[in-house]
Amino acid sequence: MGESDLTAAEIVSLADVEAARERIANVVHRTPLDTSRTFADMSGARSVGLKLEAMQRTGSFKIRGAYNRLSQLSADERANGVVASSAGNHAQGVALAGQLLDIDTTIVVPEITPAAKIDATRGYGADVIVEGEQYEASYERALDIADEERREFVHPFDDAAIIAGQGTIGCELLEQLPDLDTVIVSIGGGGLISGIATALKAHDSDVRVIGVQPEGAAHAKPSLEKGEIRRLSTVDTVAEGIADARLLEKTFAVVRERVDDVVAVSDDELSAAVALTAERAKVVAEAAGVAPVAALLSDGLDVENETVAAVVSGGNVGLREHAELVRSGLLKRGRYATVRLELRNWPTGVAAVVDAIEECGAELDELARVRRDRGDRPNRTPIELVVAGSGRNHLETVVESLDDLDGIGVAECSPDPRSTG
Amino acid sequence: MGESDLTAAEIVSLADVEAARERIANVVHRTPLDTSRTFADMSGARSVGLKLEAMQRTGSFKIRGAYNRLSQLSADERANGVVASSAGNHAQGVALAGQLLDIDTTIVVPEITPAAKIDATRGYGADVIVEGEQYEASYERALDIADEERREFVHPFDDAAIIAGQGTIGCELLEQLPDLDTVIVSIGGGGLISGIATALKAHDSDVRVIGVQPEGAAHAKPSLEKGEIRRLSTVDTVAEGIADARLLEKTFAVVRERVDDVVAVSDDELSAAVALTAERAKVVAEAAGVAPVAALLSDGLDVENETVAAVVSGGNVGLREHAELVRSGLLKRGRYATVRLELRNWPTGVAAVVDAIEECGAELDELARVRRDRGDRPNRTPIELVVAGSGRNHLETVVESLDDLDGIGVAECSPDPRSTG
Repeated sequence: MGESDLTAAEIVSLADVEAARERIANVVHRTPLDTSRTFADMSGARSVGLKLEAMQRTGSFKIRGAYNRLSQLSADERANGVVASSAGNHAQGVALAGQLLDIDTTIVVPEITPAAKIDATRGYGADVIVEGEQYEASYERALDIADEERREFVHPFDDAAIIAGQGTIGCELLEQLPDLDTVIVSIGGGGLISGIATALKAHDSDVRVIGVQPEGAAHAKPSLEKGEIRRLSTVDTVAEGIADARLLEKTFAVVRERVDDVVAVSDDELSAAVALTAERAKVVAEAAGVAPVAALLSDGLDVENETVAAVVSGGNVGLREHAELVRSGLLKRGRYATVRLELRNWPTGVAAVVDAIEECGAELDELARVRRDRGDRPNRTPIELVVAGSGRNHLETVVESLDDLDGIGVAECSPDPRSTG
Repeated sequence: MGESDLTAAEIVSLADVEAARERIANVVHRTPLDTSRTFADMSGARSVGLKLEAMQRTGSFKIRGAYNRLSQLSADERANGVVASSAGNHAQGVALAGQLLDIDTTIVVPEITPAAKIDATRGYGADVIVEGEQYEASYERALDIADEERREFVHPFDDAAIIAGQGTIGCELLEQLPDLDTVIVSIGGGGLISGIATALKAHDSDVRVIGVQPEGAAHAKPSLEKGEIRRLSTVDTVAEGIADARLLEKTFAVVRERVDDVVAVSDDELSAAVALTAERAKVVAEAAGVAPVAALLSDGLDVENETVAAVVSGGNVGLREHAELVRSGLLKRGRYATVRLELRNWPTGVAAVVDAIEECGAELDELARVRRDRGDRPNRTPIELVVAGSGRNHLETVVESLDDLDGIGVAECSPDPRSTG
């Protein structure tokens, strides 16, 4: 694929990023850097700043690259309009950039795209075409439209202007955290990290740039190790925003030269990071957006005594899906237990259960009489509880208290705090 | 109560606020102002900025006043320590201020206080005493402790140093939104709005300062109308952080002179504002914290073409409670419908139901076979669905599609999109 021929310097430079910054200055939010002592304490870092691109216009960083790209089109190209394919944030970025620059936009989205994202993209004035079971088919259709209608195709990441636009985050970080040691950035196709690494390394080659991928879409590390682009045959991750199968020519060249290392995080770590980001930083973020938070808190990355920035790159997640991720994350962190009890006295025995949980300072989240199983004793009534507490040790004391009650036996508990505490 | 004797100028001035700002400068976050085009479009304002005190240290603005107050204690007072009573954000503010200034803190909290808030307060090094079914009893106990242990009592709002500390938000707003027309601020006991109004009115008497209260704790408006403090005999609101029954002497005097108007919002409007703030601004906020967002979007306040700041004052809400509020808010906004169907063919008829919902671009959230009711026909199987859509009109088309299916009848629908659309 010729990926070894290009050098990063031939693709994008600090000057490109600085030019992008001027172009986007009046359009794009300079997003806040939220200093988090909690995450510093949890990770051992001296200080941690969350760069909140979830609060960017359109809910993600994508508007930076899209606006930089579209604002450089010629008068003819502007008149012809642009086309892009995306199931997510790039769609909204291109649509808003087109609206602001008065450029006609067509976006091809795969069939799985949620109605809310289609609505949002149409809300920025784009013409949305739903086509393809997979993203690949949408991409092919967008290329066809580019040909047929002489529209400029706007690639989501393998494009120097897109990379330079995303890199403006790096310039802001240098102002917001001047003594930055390490920045952690998600990698899907690699456009975001390519831009940020370009800006940061040009200012200070000692700043460490770490990429993060979900374990189910971890293509960058093998590509870097082999010295050529590796493509995954399948991807499977909760972080749909970075569920890409490979880098492409430009991002591979930039990542190879300017990114220090790439780590992987599990779906469990991602859901826990969604929950922690909501609970501690009060920010609603998508799973792809909090991959850097997950990496920060994982054992795979050492940030002892460093000043760290984690780029929270997007917040476009439905509230229902967010609630599910939060729930998964709290389960993973041992904050809920499902307990199956056998009651000698139904329903009067319930009062003692409720009281015992209250006395432990825990919360009863759900309670139901459930279907009898084969192993249940005929003179006992099975009930199931969900109890919320501050962590595994706390829930362990709750389960012990319940087990000590007269006429009540704990039949099952999941996750069992007694074995995982 | 002598409330008519004091003037605002005797209590707190811009100079007090500016002095507070210097004291807290190195300790407290200058919180971001998040510009929201969505809320501007929804309210008719020219622009809307959310002042995100939910992202303040301790998760609310309270640290500003608490630190300003504690940092002015004499050496003797510091050595003796302080005491406060609070079920919420004031507890954490005082505890952290004490920790930062090396002052011993005792906080009395009522029995209803969630374990998570007690843990957070203890996490800042406070000695937490749980006492009292109601806040009043905790307050009395704290006064007793102040007497017995010669500790300084730190009132949550009726205190000039507390008011001046909260007023530092006003100074930041003037820098972040220089052409501010209207600021909207929650009122519980009135400390926050007293401080902000003091700062803003001194700079520009034309800036409009609007207070917001929940309908179930709307004591300020009647007090202002009567010219004396009115106390509610009961309060009942989802916004527990501002569920106060009255202003006190100092806040009454300042609000009377420096606040332009006070509006009330319903619990439904509050939960809708929690949902919208999460969905559009990507911020996790408590109900009390989003009362200004609720007011902004209500018919009771006209902000046409204005530059508006809404102070989102706190984010200390459990994630489970937040999810419940979001769910209520989405229901209120017509984004969910519960539909009871009668199926001629169970279970094969389910496939047609699922397909019809997909084809409408809606999402099937829940599906259950439910208990037969008296009115159900014997040859039909009742099932219940929860369907999520973009709003009432959308869900109406879903319900119509379901009703048109062969062998399927819509028995009930709640909220009925056909009647409320």
